[in-house]
Amino acid sequence: MEIAILLFDGVTALDAVGPYEVLGMLPEAHVRLVATERGAKRTRSGSLALIADHTLTEVPRPDIVVVPGGPGEEGLRNDPEVLGWLRAAHRTSRWTTSVCTGSLTLAAAGILDGVEATTHWASTEELASLGVKTRDERVVVRGKVITAAGVSAGIDMALRLAQLEAGDDVAMAIQLILEYDPQPPFDAGSPGKAPPHVLEMVQSRRRARSPRSPG
Amino acid sequence: MEIAILLFDGVTALDAVGPYEVLGMLPEAHVRLVATERGAKRTRSGSLALIADHTLTEVPRPDIVVVPGGPGEEGLRNDPEVLGWLRAAHRTSRWTTSVCTGSLTLAAAGILDGVEATTHWASTEELASLGVKTRDERVVVRGKVITAAGVSAGIDMALRLAQLEAGDDVAMAIQLILEYDPQPPFDAGSPGKAPPHVLEMVQSRRRARSPRSPG
Repeated sequence: MEIAILLFDGVTALDAVGPYEVLGMLPEAHVRLVATERGAKRTRSGSLALIADHTLTEVPRPDIVVVPGGPGEEGLRNDPEVLGWLRAAHRTSRWTTSVCTGSLTLAAAGILDGVEATTHWASTEELASLGVKTRDERVVVRGKVITAAGVSAGIDMALRLAQLEAGDDVAMAIQLILEYDPQPPFDAGSPGKAPPHVLEMVQSRRRARSPRSPG
Repeated sequence: MEIAILLFDGVTALDAVGPYEVLGMLPEAHVRLVATERGAKRTRSGSLALIADHTLTEVPRPDIVVVPGGPGEEGLRNDPEVLGWLRAAHRTSRWTTSVCTGSLTLAAAGILDGVEATTHWASTEELASLGVKTRDERVVVRGKVITAAGVSAGIDMALRLAQLEAGDDVAMAIQLILEYDPQPPFDAGSPGKAPPHVLEMVQSRRRARSPRSPG
């Protein structure tokens, strides 16, 4: 079971690391951190780097593909090597997945043509503008394509994938090992649940930073 | 606001990356990934490496200290340089925190003397054996010491810390940006919630691997 997680400069660390922790516990899992070039990839804020040990060409036919999002996603979406690798990998993959704005990259590769998908709540319009029918759900499974909402949703996506691939007991065992029994101090994790003034605060900061800057 | 996250070979990636994502969004946050030596630290399963950009001596007085756990935690606990740095940093920190088995390292440094704490559910007895009064809670706040339960609990811990440090609105905004609206497919994330046969499966595998291998 070969699992390829795509890294790039400007990746959001948790987008990649949530699925990494969950999927790495699947039976016979071999996780490969892949990128167009080997080496350190700086995450969103720049102070943490994750290392890609493999080039894309070294991992041409992974069983599971994970495409995280992050501010660097726009670079991915415009990189023919990445899109070509994704299209080829998707032809033979068991599962092709994304977290957060990674679904924009899947869309650019044509993988979401006719496939409903989700993304970070702040990027829903942008995903729709790429011709994708969007769903306001945390995890969307359509055939072998699984997309997740923003950042932390990659953990839920990967548990769902673990369930589909290895069954309920294995997925529950992984959840137990990661002690994933969420108890956030607030119930403010989606636009419909956060207080309106908090939503407005986040949206105005995003507008100030960049009108189209993804999660 | 300088935030030091301790890395080491055998760290569990999500223990470090959960707090990294949350705390990195605090106003004026400067996150430093620190280790006894600079460079790549391999995480639990070995296929992902995180880079420490700073040595411990370069970051002597962080405002927030985060000690993640993982199988490599036993090395930390026996490293006089790490324990000395922790003791010194704790004297001037605003917050000293741990995730998962990171609390065992705090205990070894004497920081949990007379301070109630939590840890990964499978390491509770080991923490108690170090003389710590353990609490079966996901996040335990005692003065400026905050300890979290296993792996994913670091996200909840960091949101709680964000609330204490920067107020409700900032903490809720961070939760919203990370779209932390958990919807795992099962409610099996703690020993009391997982089906007994799943708990037994996880415990027997842990016993087979190592009688004292931490989360």
